[in-house]
Amino acid sequence: MAYILSVFAVRNLLVLSLALNVSLILRVLLLHDSQDGSFNGFFFAEQKEEALATKITRLSSSVAPSSSLTMAQGDEDRVINLDHGDPTMYESYWQKKGDETTVVIPGWQFMSYFSDATRLCWFLEPEFAKQIVRLHNVVGNAVTENRHIVVGTGSTQLFQAALYALSPCAEAEPISVVSAAPYYSSYPLITDCLKSRLYKWAGDARSFSKNGPYIELVTSPNNPDGFARRSVVNGSEGILIHDLAYYWPQYTPISSPANYDLMLFTVSKSTGHAGMRIGWALVKDEDVARKMTKYIEINTIGVSKDSQVRAAKVLKVISDNSEGPNEGDSFFEFSYRVMAKRWKQLREAVQQSGLFSVSDFPPQLCMFLNRVFEPQPAFAWIKCEGDIEDCESFLRGKKILTRGGKHFGVNPKYVRISMLDRDKNYETFVRRLSTIRS
Amino acid sequence: MAYILSVFAVRNLLVLSLALNVSLILRVLLLHDSQDGSFNGFFFAEQKEEALATKITRLSSSVAPSSSLTMAQGDEDRVINLDHGDPTMYESYWQKKGDETTVVIPGWQFMSYFSDATRLCWFLEPEFAKQIVRLHNVVGNAVTENRHIVVGTGSTQLFQAALYALSPCAEAEPISVVSAAPYYSSYPLITDCLKSRLYKWAGDARSFSKNGPYIELVTSPNNPDGFARRSVVNGSEGILIHDLAYYWPQYTPISSPANYDLMLFTVSKSTGHAGMRIGWALVKDEDVARKMTKYIEINTIGVSKDSQVRAAKVLKVISDNSEGPNEGDSFFEFSYRVMAKRWKQLREAVQQSGLFSVSDFPPQLCMFLNRVFEPQPAFAWIKCEGDIEDCESFLRGKKILTRGGKHFGVNPKYVRISMLDRDKNYETFVRRLSTIRS
Repeated sequence: MAYILSVFAVRNLLVLSLALNVSLILRVLLLHDSQDGSFNGFFFAEQKEEALATKITRLSSSVAPSSSLTMAQGDEDRVINLDHGDPTMYESYWQKKGDETTVVIPGWQFMSYFSDATRLCWFLEPEFAKQIVRLHNVVGNAVTENRHIVVGTGSTQLFQAALYALSPCAEAEPISVVSAAPYYSSYPLITDCLKSRLYKWAGDARSFSKNGPYIELVTSPNNPDGFARRSVVNGSEGILIHDLAYYWPQYTPISSPANYDLMLFTVSKSTGHAGMRIGWALVKDEDVARKMTKYIEINTIGVSKDSQVRAAKVLKVISDNSEGPNEGDSFFEFSYRVMAKRWKQLREAVQQSGLFSVSDFPPQLCMFLNRVFEPQPAFAWIKCEGDIEDCESFLRGKKILTRGGKHFGVNPKYVRISMLDRDKNYETFVRRLSTIRS
Repeated sequence: MAYILSVFAVRNLLVLSLALNVSLILRVLLLHDSQDGSFNGFFFAEQKEEALATKITRLSSSVAPSSSLTMAQGDEDRVINLDHGDPTMYESYWQKKGDETTVVIPGWQFMSYFSDATRLCWFLEPEFAKQIVRLHNVVGNAVTENRHIVVGTGSTQLFQAALYALSPCAEAEPISVVSAAPYYSSYPLITDCLKSRLYKWAGDARSFSKNGPYIELVTSPNNPDGFARRSVVNGSEGILIHDLAYYWPQYTPISSPANYDLMLFTVSKSTGHAGMRIGWALVKDEDVARKMTKYIEINTIGVSKDSQVRAAKVLKVISDNSEGPNEGDSFFEFSYRVMAKRWKQLREAVQQSGLFSVSDFPPQLCMFLNRVFEPQPAFAWIKCEGDIEDCESFLRGKKILTRGGKHFGVNPKYVRISMLDRDKNYETFVRRLSTIRS
């Protein structure tokens, strides 16, 4: 194909650059107004919670600027929604690094369905694949040698791709899918969403004793409770999926590179870019990787190129900064410090209140950060002590939206609380939590 | 949340702008090398075809620059892959418009899962929603009043969301999903991929006579044969999904705004940006729109923000140019002209060869382009005449990869051929087709 590469086109690009200045400056100015809304939750926001949160949000968007609402209402009246794990905490870091991770995508690029037709995963952008391998090598959290990379629309899609790939085709009945409780609340929903004859949710792995093949999901560190995990079912025909979304140094010490057959990662929880909807799987078996690719082909004919290009840039900057002279300002140093501070605040609030409890974690050496620390998970798994039976409802009464234990297959005395919200919301939350008395 | 908006940050942005110049110029230069590969097909590329195409691609990527390969091999030895509908034909137009549709995304933007929590479809970017409505109003191809917009990772995901939303929950057996043959080859695959108990593929709508509820897919203009369609099943409990991916003025005269309960569109075929993986549904019933949103939430927790932002920009430029003084250079004028030229070439080649036949279409007035023309579909649906029983195999022997009739539920004497490949491939194809004799 012939490309018109005249001086005219180059001039156009230079003119564009000036326009970009204006556009970027406007974006920075506008950002101030657009990022202060309250959000209603997804997946498990119940009717009542939704109504409450939506009311606040609608109110918020009808009054401009939104900061005046906050002041008028007072922080103590605000609904704090920590039900979902929206990683908006990371915005402030990327704002500071903004010029380093900005992507520019001309209208004619990345138009094809294909990224690289010679790859097993033909819709995986080569530069993204390269940066995935590099980041794992820099951080030391996963073995990438002799692995196939499959990109997905978030690790959620990859989890489904893995179920599709690992389910035996010829079986008369669906293969059982299990995970030790408390398990990620979306696993049962996703697994049973379409009532597949290939696989079905079979609950808590600890009480699973059926003979024959099964799929066990091992989330480590675990969502919701933050503990490191291994498989628990003692069967000979188990197939394991390791969800390692939180195996990054801001959440837990990196003790050694994970080395499992099928490992899932996502940018949502590693870099905070949930809106990209980008995840990746490291897959040992070629046939499994091929079937996962086939699922994503059937489900969405591949994965957004734009987000892959952007994710590649973000991963590259993280690796560059982790290795370079500005190591102290690196992404994982920043996010480690924020999480350490937040966990300290949380433990103080829990102690002051006296109504709640939260687990201690054994400290361990992180080979990447080269220091010993206790895990500081992306979610707090909090128990209401005393005679509060439904912790989620109790906290909802205090205008704190959380996700209750029953969604994770355990007691409603527990709730999961996102630790990844913006500073302002997190500060209000811990202040409010510390003042709650029975 | 407090934002640091110092002079320092603004200076950084200005420095960035200079970097962008360099980056953009490099991209333009590099583009020359990167966009000339051959691709192997997806969905139906059989082992043999794949091996053939992959061999060529590998060869191509091992020899630089790729153009020297083409010359060395000669155009007549090249495998031309027109199996899939990769819309790379549109690259040249967007290259010319490059500066108008370039997007710049700073690293800290669009990080949240949420786009607008007050919307039913909470992961839909407001600007994209606005541009969808505007483009439909400009082109006049769909009613948008009193419709909910649901965004999807391509219309493929929206099709599955619609199946999920329209399937009765309480039924003992799966609802039948039908479409009149020849139907889009992916429908059966997608519908039965996970062996759902909610719905199942039931084949050609014309031979469907079961009592009770069913879902009928109406693709208009139809993929593969390009004809305008209406529902064909004469049942009282039918639920219709209208796939209008090709109801755009480059492919068919726009006679009136489509006004159905559930309509699917995609940027892949309208603007050519298949790599974005962006589609949208216009849905009359709020409950159906809500369930479709729920499916996409469970399947991929929303849709790439980056691609939505980029799609919004592209749609805006199309609307602007369609209404502005440069109307003659508008996207639909360009693409109409290319398609008209290609169909003229195809009909001439078919006539010269004498071995094939292709349908005529009745001309109609296009209200948007304000001219009378015959449909010029995105795919050619060609029949091998005489005693050639398997047209796909026959053409594969001529190194033309197509998709045979059996995948579309009809006779293997037919093949579907993409009309949307790059100029060079298309020219080689018609030249080769015209010389084929029995």
